[in-house]
Amino acid sequence: MPSKSPLTTDLYELNMVQAYLDRGENKTAVFEFFVRRLPERRGFLLAAGLEDALGFLETMRYADADIAWLRGTGRFGDNLLDYLASFRFTGDVHAIPEGSVCFPNEPLIRITAPLPQAQLVESRLINILHFQTMIASKAARMVLAAPGKILSDFGLRTAHGAEAGLYSARASYIAGFGGAANVLAGQRYGIPIVGTMAHSFIQVHDDEATAFENYARSRPDGVILLIDTYDTEAGARKVVELAPRLKADGIAIRGVRIDSGDLIASARKVRRIFDDGGLNDVIILVSGGINEDTLQTMVAARAPIDGFGIGVNLDASIDAPSLDCAYKLQEYAGTPKRKLSEGKITWPGRKQVWRTYDTDGRIAGDVLSLESDSHPGETLIAPVMRGGERIAPPPSLQQIRDRAARDLARLPEPLRQLVPGTAYSVTVADTLQALAAEMSPAKGR
Amino acid sequence: MPSKSPLTTDLYELNMVQAYLDRGENKTAVFEFFVRRLPERRGFLLAAGLEDALGFLETMRYADADIAWLRGTGRFGDNLLDYLASFRFTGDVHAIPEGSVCFPNEPLIRITAPLPQAQLVESRLINILHFQTMIASKAARMVLAAPGKILSDFGLRTAHGAEAGLYSARASYIAGFGGAANVLAGQRYGIPIVGTMAHSFIQVHDDEATAFENYARSRPDGVILLIDTYDTEAGARKVVELAPRLKADGIAIRGVRIDSGDLIASARKVRRIFDDGGLNDVIILVSGGINEDTLQTMVAARAPIDGFGIGVNLDASIDAPSLDCAYKLQEYAGTPKRKLSEGKITWPGRKQVWRTYDTDGRIAGDVLSLESDSHPGETLIAPVMRGGERIAPPPSLQQIRDRAARDLARLPEPLRQLVPGTAYSVTVADTLQALAAEMSPAKGR
Repeated sequence: MPSKSPLTTDLYELNMVQAYLDRGENKTAVFEFFVRRLPERRGFLLAAGLEDALGFLETMRYADADIAWLRGTGRFGDNLLDYLASFRFTGDVHAIPEGSVCFPNEPLIRITAPLPQAQLVESRLINILHFQTMIASKAARMVLAAPGKILSDFGLRTAHGAEAGLYSARASYIAGFGGAANVLAGQRYGIPIVGTMAHSFIQVHDDEATAFENYARSRPDGVILLIDTYDTEAGARKVVELAPRLKADGIAIRGVRIDSGDLIASARKVRRIFDDGGLNDVIILVSGGINEDTLQTMVAARAPIDGFGIGVNLDASIDAPSLDCAYKLQEYAGTPKRKLSEGKITWPGRKQVWRTYDTDGRIAGDVLSLESDSHPGETLIAPVMRGGERIAPPPSLQQIRDRAARDLARLPEPLRQLVPGTAYSVTVADTLQALAAEMSPAKGR
Repeated sequence: MPSKSPLTTDLYELNMVQAYLDRGENKTAVFEFFVRRLPERRGFLLAAGLEDALGFLETMRYADADIAWLRGTGRFGDNLLDYLASFRFTGDVHAIPEGSVCFPNEPLIRITAPLPQAQLVESRLINILHFQTMIASKAARMVLAAPGKILSDFGLRTAHGAEAGLYSARASYIAGFGGAANVLAGQRYGIPIVGTMAHSFIQVHDDEATAFENYARSRPDGVILLIDTYDTEAGARKVVELAPRLKADGIAIRGVRIDSGDLIASARKVRRIFDDGGLNDVIILVSGGINEDTLQTMVAARAPIDGFGIGVNLDASIDAPSLDCAYKLQEYAGTPKRKLSEGKITWPGRKQVWRTYDTDGRIAGDVLSLESDSHPGETLIAPVMRGGERIAPPPSLQQIRDRAARDLARLPEPLRQLVPGTAYSVTVADTLQALAAEMSPAKGR
């Protein structure tokens, strides 16, 4: 299960809240979380993590043991400890819905709450939204590179901890993956779980054919056999020999997996062996070092591969294992705020995003404006929580996934490429530019 | 808290165990976990994660709800569900101690257990050991690049989930970091927690000087002020003005943090302002995009920086966010095993590592041998668990950290460089080579 500990936070959040409580500084603060810029070779983001973020806000509680431990550090006053002991998030939340295509500087979430609350939730909110959005954005590239193929998240083992494995399964499923190997993703989120067998299974048997048969007889639903332990073509021929005997007992071999060697060449040889042997329906899955580029290569080569198990390239987003992002104060006690540190300037105020579409339904451009502005197009940011409670029941994972499929289909063709042929237009509205200019460094204190 | 769910596993583990139970295939299996090769620019690994891995083995249990959920999938037989319901790990474990410098192909852990047990623990064991070893190895580079500097893990927010943030704090502390911002790392592991303040704290106040003073008065122990929100030098001058007033009330400013701009130039200006203002004892910390290369640059420039807050470059090991690693069957029912898939050949059998030292105490070379061999030098792999129980009480985190410091000090000079000047010698013993040759592809089935 995802971490429930409210101590999954940076110490400075507690330090600051201590100071706020000491001075009664608890007016309404507005923070927005956004990505500052896209990683190289990326053309868009796919928003993910919102439902887990809202779940965190709804359930964030300090247990007695947490309070006792904090007290024991000697760092905090009774006023802070009492505040934490009865902590409930009571703020408002606005957000871009999960599964939406979005872009840098567009707020994924806005928190409007008494200052200590809005500050206390920072670290974990970023932790959830950054990771899931990063993975969904990576997974979307794979989905676009391999239309119609079965993609599965096999990355738990080299994901960065258990939660990364779980969240990867969720974020990639939103982006269009078919399922994940991680069993917890099935229990926790209802994601289809998938699994084959390991080389060790073959090795503990005296011969490969026996291993295949034993596995198949224990797993009569959707048997996938791993055929590359010793010699992939020989393995495929054993499958051809075995299939009729199993079929007589009502067991169908659904597919095979190849995990090593030249995957395109092996898949072609295996496909021929299967087709010649009457196993036209047996699918071929491959795994091992798959990323969006190898997917594109294999698809372009028309390799007879039906599905891909994708590991660390997905779960650790190997080419871009972080997004440059920020959770920034935009307004306090009704006054817009803007950070002016060198090289890190941000847009002030509560914002909205307006999206317009081409006549063919593709997204054409966004306007980043103040919330109070009005612009043509569809608004992306909507209220999702009021006074700490959800405004509507959470969407199902399927609904989120449907939104992602719809938004990915609406991407302009150049943005669907692995190397985007164009940058999407996000215009900053005049009123927002004017507000930012008003708060220029010359006016800094 | 780290995930306790035994469903943090790949479905294929359950599929295979189902097949093993169906056939009574439960003889003793030996698996070893090792890293196949070093990432680019890396010269060594620092072993980490063992104590969490052993904790996982000791406490792995299936709750009634887990069994009920698994049953509900319709995928598993009663024999498997009953087996899981009463699951206890009863195997033996050998390992290289945490905090040891080690190299590719050297087994970090060996599991000797009835086959279904040894298989069931695979995914999570890799998940823990891979990540913590990767982070400790990354952190060690930073420690070597900045001798005598205070290094702190600030990376929770963009770590890959909560557990990655927690394990990063632990692994970097083992490698020699001074502490972490993650409060849970303090509660869970006793790691020193550190924290400053955010730009938002400055922004909610009408002026920066008031913000500094309010913060200092609420945090009289070790105040660290963030001085770059508007203008770093102006911020530093406000600290000089404020310090005597606070001192009169018994409050000492310990340091300042700079998070943007040219950190070297800013630190020099701030140091001069402080020294001229009589604040010789106030330390300067910097953060923002720090990695081992920027550390080396700042140290070489003799920048007057006392400490570094390091974020995503540590927690996501940005330049190498995964290690190529494997958990491989080495022996089953007394017979050595070896996987022969193309490009993924591994060394068979139960292994030992023998390490020799130069006359000056630096490590000189390792021999990878069969466990039954005898070679000169110190053995690295030792028993840590027998029959599912620890052989000795776990070492303290401090003891693990001391071992790391000792081993890092014993690295030959070329391996201490960020671009290693030489590859460390790991020789494969003749007996192991002979066994591997005996099990050559020609003998594959």
